[in-house]
Formats: sequence, C-alpha cells, structure tokens
Amino acid sequence: MSSAYQNLVNRFQQMYHLQHLGAIAGWDQAAMMPAGGNQARGAALAELNALLHKLLTAPEVASWLQEAQRQETSEETIRSVEEMAVEWLHASAIPDDLVKAKTIASTHCEHAWRSQRPENDWEGFSKNLKEVVNLSRQEAGVRAEKSNTSPYNALLELYEPGVNTQELDLLFGDLKTWLPGFIQEAQDRQDSVTIIEPEGTFPTEKQKALGLKVMKLLGFDFNHGRLDVSTHPFCGGVSEDVRMTTRYSEDNFVEALMGTVHETGHARYNQSLPTDRALPVSSYRSMGIHEGQSLFFEMQLGRSPAFLSLIQPLIVKHLCDGKQPPYMALDNLEKIYTQVRPGFIRVDADEITYPAHIILRYEIERDLIEGSIEVDDIPELWQQKMKDYLGLDVAGDHKNGCMQDIHWPMGAFGYFPSYTLGAMVAAQLFAAQKKAMPDIEKQIQNGSLMPIFDWLKTNIWSQGRKYSTAELMTRATGEPLTASYFKNHLKERYLG
Amino acid sequence: MSSAYQNLVNRFQQMYHLQHLGAIAGWDQAAMMPAGGNQARGAALAELNALLHKLLTAPEVASWLQEAQRQETSEETIRSVEEMAVEWLHASAIPDDLVKAKTIASTHCEHAWRSQRPENDWEGFSKNLKEVVNLSRQEAGVRAEKSNTSPYNALLELYEPGVNTQELDLLFGDLKTWLPGFIQEAQDRQDSVTIIEPEGTFPTEKQKALGLKVMKLLGFDFNHGRLDVSTHPFCGGVSEDVRMTTRYSEDNFVEALMGTVHETGHARYNQSLPTDRALPVSSYRSMGIHEGQSLFFEMQLGRSPAFLSLIQPLIVKHLCDGKQPPYMALDNLEKIYTQVRPGFIRVDADEITYPAHIILRYEIERDLIEGSIEVDDIPELWQQKMKDYLGLDVAGDHKNGCMQDIHWPMGAFGYFPSYTLGAMVAAQLFAAQKKAMPDIEKQIQNGSLMPIFDWLKTNIWSQGRKYSTAELMTRATGEPLTASYFKNHLKERYLG
Repeated sequence: MSSAYQNLVNRFQQMYHLQHLGAIAGWDQAAMMPAGGNQARGAALAELNALLHKLLTAPEVASWLQEAQRQETSEETIRSVEEMAVEWLHASAIPDDLVKAKTIASTHCEHAWRSQRPENDWEGFSKNLKEVVNLSRQEAGVRAEKSNTSPYNALLELYEPGVNTQELDLLFGDLKTWLPGFIQEAQDRQDSVTIIEPEGTFPTEKQKALGLKVMKLLGFDFNHGRLDVSTHPFCGGVSEDVRMTTRYSEDNFVEALMGTVHETGHARYNQSLPTDRALPVSSYRSMGIHEGQSLFFEMQLGRSPAFLSLIQPLIVKHLCDGKQPPYMALDNLEKIYTQVRPGFIRVDADEITYPAHIILRYEIERDLIEGSIEVDDIPELWQQKMKDYLGLDVAGDHKNGCMQDIHWPMGAFGYFPSYTLGAMVAAQLFAAQKKAMPDIEKQIQNGSLMPIFDWLKTNIWSQGRKYSTAELMTRATGEPLTASYFKNHLKERYLG
Repeated sequence: MSSAYQNLVNRFQQMYHLQHLGAIAGWDQAAMMPAGGNQARGAALAELNALLHKLLTAPEVASWLQEAQRQETSEETIRSVEEMAVEWLHASAIPDDLVKAKTIASTHCEHAWRSQRPENDWEGFSKNLKEVVNLSRQEAGVRAEKSNTSPYNALLELYEPGVNTQELDLLFGDLKTWLPGFIQEAQDRQDSVTIIEPEGTFPTEKQKALGLKVMKLLGFDFNHGRLDVSTHPFCGGVSEDVRMTTRYSEDNFVEALMGTVHETGHARYNQSLPTDRALPVSSYRSMGIHEGQSLFFEMQLGRSPAFLSLIQPLIVKHLCDGKQPPYMALDNLEKIYTQVRPGFIRVDADEITYPAHIILRYEIERDLIEGSIEVDDIPELWQQKMKDYLGLDVAGDHKNGCMQDIHWPMGAFGYFPSYTLGAMVAAQLFAAQKKAMPDIEKQIQNGSLMPIFDWLKTNIWSQGRKYSTAELMTRATGEPLTASYFKNHLKERYLG
C-alpha cells in the first residue's frame, strides 16, 4: 500500500468522523431541536460543509490521488482509489464561487417556496427558480465538460453513477406508453371492490410499539439505531447508528406502518454496509439502489399478501385491544395497501401511478437543464403530461402541480429518476430471490425472513460500491437493470 | 477594529460553530445514542477536539493576538482579546505530546475505573491513577511556569480564573473548623423530627410533566432548549439550544424534581449569556459562577419554604390524582428537602455536609499535584479526613471512598473547589437580592419570580466574562466572594 493511498485513507477517515457529527446534528434538527435553535444549527452545519469541502478539494488530495492511481496494484485498493477520485471530482469540479452562488440562490428559493407554495404564487416562485436553474445549468455545463458528457447526464452522475439519459429513455419509455392503459385497467378492476376504511383513534404510543415490533421482524439492529418522529420521515444518522424517523396520525395507522417498513429498508442497507466505513468504496452504491432496498421492503415484501398475513395479528394485537374490527380483516388490509388512486401529489401516489409522476418530472428537468425548454414553459408542460400520463387536469393549481416538490427549489436536478429506478431494482431483486427460493411466499408467511435479508446482505448491502450498478445487478440477478420485472410485478399484483 | 481582531473573531466563530456540533453530539451520546454507536461517536468527537485544538493553537492565532493586543483601543475589544488570549494560552501551553499522553492515560484510567470501582480494586486503580497524576503534574508544571504560579494554582485557572489556593484556604479554612460542630448541632435538632417518606409509584410521564411545569415557572425558554433523560443529569447543548437532562425513579419524585430545579439554574445562565456568543468574553465566567446559578435555583430558591409552598400544589396535582397523602404536606416536604444525613457519597450529600466532601478532596488533590503526598497516601488521608470532617469511618471501603468520583480518573484536578465556591456564590447573590427586595419570600410564595431572574440576568448572566469573578461579585453584591453569607444561610435554615 502506497503512502499516498494511506494519506487518502487518513483524510477520508477524518472527513468521515466529521460527517458523523453533521449527520447526527442533521437528524437532531429534524427530530429533536426546538425551533429557536435553527439559526445556530444552520450556521454550524454550513461551517462543517465548508470545512469538509476544503478537506476534500485541498491541493494535496489531487496529488495523492494521482500518485495512488499510479502506484496501487491490488484490485481492492485500485477500486477504492477510483471511488475516492469520484468523490473528489464531484467536489472539485465546480469553482467555489459557483458553489456559493448556487447555495445562496437555492437556500433563498427553497425558503421563499415554503410560503409561495400554499399561496399558489407561481410568479414569485418562478423568478427565484430561474436563478436556481441558471446556476444549475452552469454547474451542469462545467461538470459535463470535465466528464465529457451532456449537462443533464453530468447531474445524473451525482445520484446514479453510470446511468444516462439514453438508458433512462429506454427504461422509462416503455413504461410511459404502457402505464396509462394499465392504470385504467387496474382502476376498472378495483371499481367493484369495497374497502372498509379504518375507524377510531390509534394512539401514537401504540402505533410506535407496533412499528418497533415490525422493525424487529425486519431485522433492524437496535444496538446501532433508533426510531423517532419527524415531519418528513427519513433514514439518517450514520451506518453505526442509524436514525430512522416516521410520523404518526392518530386517525389512521396505515401510512405510518408502511412508512416504517419503507425506512427500515434504507436502515438495513446502511447498517450492513462494508465495515471499512470511511472509504467511499464502502458507501451505498447509488440513490436508486438505496431506494431499491426501501421499496423492496415496502412494495415487494411489505404490501404482499404473505407479509400482511404475517403482521396482521400484530397490528390487531397492538391497535385493537383484543377484538378485531372488520377493517382489520386481512383481505381488507390487502385492499387498502394496493389501492390505486391517480392524484396530483407524488408523495401520496400509489405504486402504479408513482412512475408517471417521476417520468413527467424527469422529462421536464432533463429538457430544462439541456436548455430546450425554459422555466416559463413548466406549468403548461406539467398540465399536458399530467393529462397524458394520469388523465388529470391540474390547470392553474401550481401548488399541487409543479410547485409541490422541494427538489427543484433546492437545486437537486437529476435526483427524481432514482425513485423509479429504485422500484425497478426492488422488483428485479425480488424476482431473482423468488427464482432461487420458489417457496418465498410461504417463508414470508411463516415469518422466516432471515434468508431474504441474508441474500440482500450478501448480494447488495455488503458490496458497497465495489461494482458499478450494472455489474452489481448482474451479479445479483443475472442481468443489468430492466423494467420488465417491475412491469411483471405490477401486472401480477394488480391484474393477476 | 483591527484586521487582526477581525481574524480572531472569524476564527472563534468557526470554532464556535464546530463546537456546536460536538455539544449536540455529546448530549445525544448521553441521552439518545444506542450503545453500539459509542465507538464511532468517540472517534468522531476525538477528531473534532483535535481539529479545534489545531484551529486554536495555529501559529497565525498567536500573531493575531499579539497584533490585536497592540492595536485594539476600545475597552470592549481589549477585554475580548484578553479572554481570547486566555483560551489560547490554556490550549497552547502544554505540548501536543503531553496532551496526547494524558488523554490516553486518563481515558484508560477512567474506562478501567468503571469496573474497578464496584470491585473495590484500589490496587488496580491506583496503578492507573499514578500515571494520570504523573502526567497531570507535568501539565501543571508546564502551565505553572508559563503563568508564573504554583502547579495546583495553574490547574485551578482552568476552572476558576483568578482564584488560587491562598483564597481557597481562606474561604474553606473557616468553614472547615466550623462545620463539624454545626453539622452535629443540626443533626441533634433534627433527631426529634419525624419525616414521612413518600410512598407509591410516581410514573415517569407524570414526573416529567411536573418537571416541565416547574421549568416553565423558573423561566426556562423551551424555544431554545429541551428536557430529556440521562443516567447522569447535566445541562449541555449550546446556549441557543440548551439540552437539560434529568433521571426519574418511579419510587420517589424528590430527587428528580430538585435535580430539575438545579439544572434549570445552569440552563438559564446559558440561555441568557451575551449574544455575541462565539466570543470567549461572552462565555460563562467560571465553573463556580455556573454552579452558583444552579445552587441559587436549588438551594437558595428551590428548597426554601416559600418556593416549596408555591410548587406544593403543583406536585400534588401532577402526582397525586386529586387527593393529598400526608407525605405531601408542605411541612413534610420542607423536612424532606432539608434533611441532614452525613454519608460517604458526595453526590448524595445534603447542603451542609457537601462542603466537607469538597474540602477533603481539595486538600488531597492540592497536595497531590504540589507533590507533598503520593497516590498511595490517598486512602489513609481520605479515611482520616472523613473522620475529622464528617465523623464517619470509611476504612477499606474504597468504592465509597476515594474511588467514588470520576474527576481524578479523568485527570480533572482543580475542579472540585468550584462546587463549594458555587454554594457561596449562590448564598451571597441571594443575600444581596434579599437586601434589595426585603419581601422576597413573599414574592416567591406568590410566584412572582421574574424580578429575581431579571436581577440575575442583569448582574450575572448577561455579563459573561466582562469582569473577573471578584469584580463580578463586587458589582452584583457590593463585595468579593466570602463564605459568610453561606454560613449565615446554613445557620438560618438549619438552626433558625
């Protein structure tokens, strides 16, 4: 091992330790902090981020990387250096002035958006968004030049290394033409189905106890993590101490329960990453692979009849004080958890309409970054695509249309595709497991979930970034990512 | 304002932001973190501390200080630079090798102490402690040389700037001869008093609700802080977001309630420091002044008949489901909260035996650092002094004797005196207020506490380190710190 490589390891270890403090402070900000602490916390986290940026982009890191690239000979350290170089390139590609300008513009835009959205103030919002788009285009342009690719592809690289618009157009294109008819068919099928809505009060404490029980069933390691509450559920913290959050509504348990299952998927991936945790090569593969784990837990496993039959007695036990009301019947729970309802809001969307929301956003943000459309074109495009893909008319309702997401105000162009890539990853992983374990449904029903998680751990979680996404998927499932397993899954569940 | 001063301000601001993250992560470690996260957290905090040390002792800081000392002309910035220089001297006085060696030795000693103490293993413990003492003597020696004082005085400076053994010998000396007889007298007086011990279960949730109510009464700002649970109660976090902890025993509410009052004193001081928070001159004055605020809240205010009469209805309301059992009678609560019981354990000591525990430790650690005694002499000295000051025989019971505290294993020599200085500060501040507000007891009884806190805020909290401890006390009370108000307070409460 070269001394250059050792220097790099030391630097990434130092950064890892400092990032740990930022991750815990970030979790605290969302789950614990009183409102009055916000300004000081924001300043503290900004200071840390500036410091981390400096540590990564310092001139010595560039020389260490060059030396290590020349000197390392083992497959393992060569891969490790490659992933270090990716981190370095992402951080150092754009000039400090641009970083600063984008941070200021997006912080301003996001802050204003919080009040502009409820007021449906597209005019005010679009003025700020133009500045964010302008700077994001600059950023994309600089990154594209350094990576010899197109501007939007360069942003995709930040979230989905190795994935480009060509692949996305292929994966999404097929889905896009197939979905509208499929959604209609599924809806028609559900027209005659009666769902009994849950009634009554479900106290937070009881829902929490149920959630903890389900997390345990799903293998969450409580010695290295905990569950709390936040307005927007997330999975944060560090891999040695994963901080999962959820939110409870005392009117209904349905969303919190499945939200907990979803976040547990993220959590288990984090808890099972390679142990050399400070190295970039030990980090999660991509946002899509990460979302693939949460959607494996939620969509493939969690909403399956087998899993629902496993946890139904637990739900009844925790929430019903002994007697089982009709809405808790297993077949009613299955109906609740597979209900199809096209709507305006992405985060409320069901499994089969969700991809339409993503494809719409992907197409708009891609064209926006590539420069073929402008911010002023967004409302009309949004309206047209909502009509085409979901048959809904959102005209003029910006707050439930193109102003609903935080991603664009905060300048995170290139992120949206990961959600639907994740759905495809989840379906493909589940299909591969089913092939290897034909009785997988029976196993799930019996609560024998460990073989499933061991498979994921071996094939995905413990691999970190050792392989590209395509390689990782091929090694795990026999082929690179495809949309077909996701389509098959939907057909089977909704028309089967 | 010189550019050198501006550079210093920027550097201290940067450190303040990073310290914020350490403070929140430290609170989290004690109040939230699952056990498995400890190693990663320890490494993260160690990294931060090393970084902060480096930022403070960097060569440019020394030159900025020199320049600023020459160039600053306003009273305010001159004081600010002086306190920056104190921080710098404390951090840069001892060589990095010694810092490192002491950190390793004390971490090892403290870790081993956790199991050695319950096993009463003085032999094993003393071996490690010798190494810590040896390095603390070296540290004290180097600091003493740079500050032109004695070794123990140099350590005192870290906690009580401006206080030395001469002053302590004076303040404690009088107390030491007076206490044994006084304790005896107070005990004799209480011999005939019957106390009804609280009985029954006091659920944590109810105790917490009571604690929050009392904190509100005491002016705690919940927009800038919160209350949680930890094994060892403390007041941490940052002044913009104070994190207070307590611990509940469901058998009894007495300790948790008064512990909450105590920590609220610390909390209010922190929440009311000057707003230029990143500057050392805006930090708390000393450990003794800090403890003075918590003991003001707990001992002067909290255990007074007037305050107990104010909160007794609240206690009954929260803990008794409407009816009032005999142990909740006001006069019984007063007896409970002023009960005198000499014992082995400092942290369990009452108000009048506590100083004996401190004086004993002060005398031993002073002589240990000055080199006139050795670690092997400790048990015998401890035994002798416990006999002399408290009339108790601790022979051979090291775990309840000289092994009971964490301070020495962690190398914090010079800290103990602050506790009793705090008791004196509290008594003197209360006496000054009483002089200005002769009807203070009536005010307390009526729940009109704001004038009291406003007085503390104006005279102490908002002053930060603007003045020395002696000046601060003189400005607030008309004279420097003296033991007489504390003695008078004890006489009045226990023999009055």
